[in-house]
Amino acid sequence: MRKVEGDVLIQNVTVIGAGSWGTALATVLADNGHQVTLWVRDTRLAEEINSKHVNEKYLPGEKLSANIVATTNIQEAVVGKRIVLLVVPSHAMRQICQQVAPHLEPDVLLIHATKGFELQSLKRMSEVISEEVPKEIASRLAVLSGPSHAEEVVKRQPTTVVMASESKESMLRSQDLLMNTNFRVYTNPDLIGAEIAGALKNIIALGAGMSDGLGYGDNAKAALLTRGLAEISRLGIKLGAKPLTFSGLAGVGDLIATCTSKHSRNWRAGYMLGQGKKLDDVLAQMGMVVEGVRTTNAAFSLSQREQVEMPITTVLYGMLFEGKEARQGVEELMGRGKTFEMAYLNPDAE
Amino acid sequence: MRKVEGDVLIQNVTVIGAGSWGTALATVLADNGHQVTLWVRDTRLAEEINSKHVNEKYLPGEKLSANIVATTNIQEAVVGKRIVLLVVPSHAMRQICQQVAPHLEPDVLLIHATKGFELQSLKRMSEVISEEVPKEIASRLAVLSGPSHAEEVVKRQPTTVVMASESKESMLRSQDLLMNTNFRVYTNPDLIGAEIAGALKNIIALGAGMSDGLGYGDNAKAALLTRGLAEISRLGIKLGAKPLTFSGLAGVGDLIATCTSKHSRNWRAGYMLGQGKKLDDVLAQMGMVVEGVRTTNAAFSLSQREQVEMPITTVLYGMLFEGKEARQGVEELMGRGKTFEMAYLNPDAE
Repeated sequence: MRKVEGDVLIQNVTVIGAGSWGTALATVLADNGHQVTLWVRDTRLAEEINSKHVNEKYLPGEKLSANIVATTNIQEAVVGKRIVLLVVPSHAMRQICQQVAPHLEPDVLLIHATKGFELQSLKRMSEVISEEVPKEIASRLAVLSGPSHAEEVVKRQPTTVVMASESKESMLRSQDLLMNTNFRVYTNPDLIGAEIAGALKNIIALGAGMSDGLGYGDNAKAALLTRGLAEISRLGIKLGAKPLTFSGLAGVGDLIATCTSKHSRNWRAGYMLGQGKKLDDVLAQMGMVVEGVRTTNAAFSLSQREQVEMPITTVLYGMLFEGKEARQGVEELMGRGKTFEMAYLNPDAE
Repeated sequence: MRKVEGDVLIQNVTVIGAGSWGTALATVLADNGHQVTLWVRDTRLAEEINSKHVNEKYLPGEKLSANIVATTNIQEAVVGKRIVLLVVPSHAMRQICQQVAPHLEPDVLLIHATKGFELQSLKRMSEVISEEVPKEIASRLAVLSGPSHAEEVVKRQPTTVVMASESKESMLRSQDLLMNTNFRVYTNPDLIGAEIAGALKNIIALGAGMSDGLGYGDNAKAALLTRGLAEISRLGIKLGAKPLTFSGLAGVGDLIATCTSKHSRNWRAGYMLGQGKKLDDVLAQMGMVVEGVRTTNAAFSLSQREQVEMPITTVLYGMLFEGKEARQGVEELMGRGKTFEMAYLNPDAE
C-alpha cells in the first residue's frame, strides 16, 4: 500500500559516501525528518561533520543538519538499517560493496546514486553490486539518477530526479523517502536505462565543452547534444534500456544540466581540450577524476563489442587517446554522408 | 534516383521572406552554387540587398552573396521556379500563400521553415499552406526545422537541421539542395512532429527564461526542459506526431538551442517576466513579436480541446494571461502529486 502524501514515516537511513552528492542526499533525507548515518572514510571529515556540521571540502559554506551523524565504522553504519544508499565513485563501488555486504539486513532497501561503468569489466553499477550482495537484496535494488548538481540541492533549489528499479515496491518506497517540495522524485521501471543514460551523458558533456572551447556556437552544441543523445540511446537500447528513458530526466535532463553548466567537471575538461590543451595537462590541472574521460574509453569498447555506430564517441576517443586534432574531429562529424535522423526512419534500412 | 555527393545540380531557387532566417537560408543556397531570388516586401530592403549585398536590419554586418537577387514582385519571384522556400512569420503565412499560389509551377517543390500555429484556427503551417495551394503541390510539401540560429548559420558555424516530408522524393531533393559541410541536413518522414516540436518549444523557452529570471539553478532549468519536452510530446502525439521526433533535432535539439541561448527572444522575454516585470511592459520593451507568448495561448487551447495534461503550459498561461505570480507557479509545479516519469510507465494506468 502506498502512503498518503504528508503521512511521513521517520526512518533510520544510512548513506555510504560523503562526497558532495552523498552529503547532499543526506541533507534531503534530514529535511524529510529522517535520522541519517553518513559513512565516511576519512576520520577528520567525520569529526568535522559531527562537531561543526559542515563538509568544507565537498560543500563549502553549507550548514548541515544535526540529524546527520557521521561514522567511519562501516559495520555500525549498516547493521540494523532498513535503507542504505550507496553514493561512492564508480571505481570504488565493488570494494565498498564487499565491505558492506556481510552487515546488510536481509530486508534492506539498497539504493545507489553512482554514475559510471566499472572500467575493466564494462559492467553497470547495479551489475557490480549484484555480484557482491545477496541475490534477494540485489533484486530489489533502486537507482537514483537525473539532473542534480549537489551544490544546488543543498541550497534547496528546485530539483527533479528519477528513481528506477525493477521492483515496484522499491521505487515507491524510495520515492516516499526522498520526495519533498524542493526535491521532486519521479519513478521509472527502467533501471538499465537510468544507469546507462546517467553514465554515458558525461561523454557528451566532454564533447559540448570541446565545441565551446573551439569557439563554435549554440547550433553546434545543440547538434552535438542531440546527435550524442541519439548514439548513447542506440548503445543503451542494445544493452537492454528502454528508448523513452533517454528522453526523460536521466537522459535529456541530465545531459542538459551537465552540458550547459559551469558546475560540470566534464564540460570544463572538454573546454580546455577544445582550446588545444593536451589531455595530460588538462587532467593535471583539474586535479581530480574526470569521469567522462574514463567513460569515453568504456563506451568506445562497448560500441565495438556491441557493433553499435557511435560517431561522436569515436571522434572523442580519437582526440583523447590517439592525438586527433579537435578541429579535424569536428570536420569528420560534419562531413559524414547524408543520412536519416533515426535508423528506424530509413525506408531503405533492412 | 539520389545524387552522388559532390555532384551538385545548379538550380534557380526562390526564398519568400527576407527576415534573418530567410536571408540565412538564401546564403546557404548561394554557398551551394544556386541562383537565389529573394522576395522582400520592403522596396528599400530589396535595393539594399541588390546594391550593397547586405541586410542590415536582420543580419547586421554580414556580407551577402551576389548570387542572391532581391525582388518585391511576387509573380516574378515564383513563375518558372522549381523550388520555392516559404520563410515568413506564422501570422502572415496564409496571406502570402494566397499571393503565391496562382503563380506556382505544377511541379514545384515547396519547402517551409516557419515555426508556429495560426492563432485563430490552431492549425499547423502545413495545414494552412495546404488550404491555399493546389493539392498536388501540398502533398509534396517539405518542412525545415531544428536548432539553427540564423546569426550562426550566416557565419558558417556548424549547424544541423531536419527536413521532414511525407514525400520521400521531396525530403531527398531538399536535403541535396541545402546540405554542405557547415549545414548538415537530416531527413525525417514525420512532418507533423517536426512542425509541432518546432512551434511548441518556444513555450518551454519562455519558461526556461522565467526560471533563470527567478534565480533558480541548472537543476530547475533541466527539469523544466525535460518535463516540458514530455508535455509537448504528449500533445504532439495526440495531434499525430511520432514520439521519437521529439528526441531529435526538431525537438530536443531546438529546445536546447532556444532555451540556453541569449539569441532567443523567447528566453529573454521569460527572463524579464521571472524578474517580476508585467507582460505588457516586457512586450513593449522587446519591440517585436514574442512567438512563445502566442504559442502558449494556442497550446493551452489545444490542450483543452484534446484533453491533454500540460502542467507547465497551464502555469505559464496563468502567469501570462491571468496575473499568476511566477513564484507561485513554480510552487504549484513542484507541489504536484507523486507520479511516474512517463504515462506508459504507470503500472496502474488504464
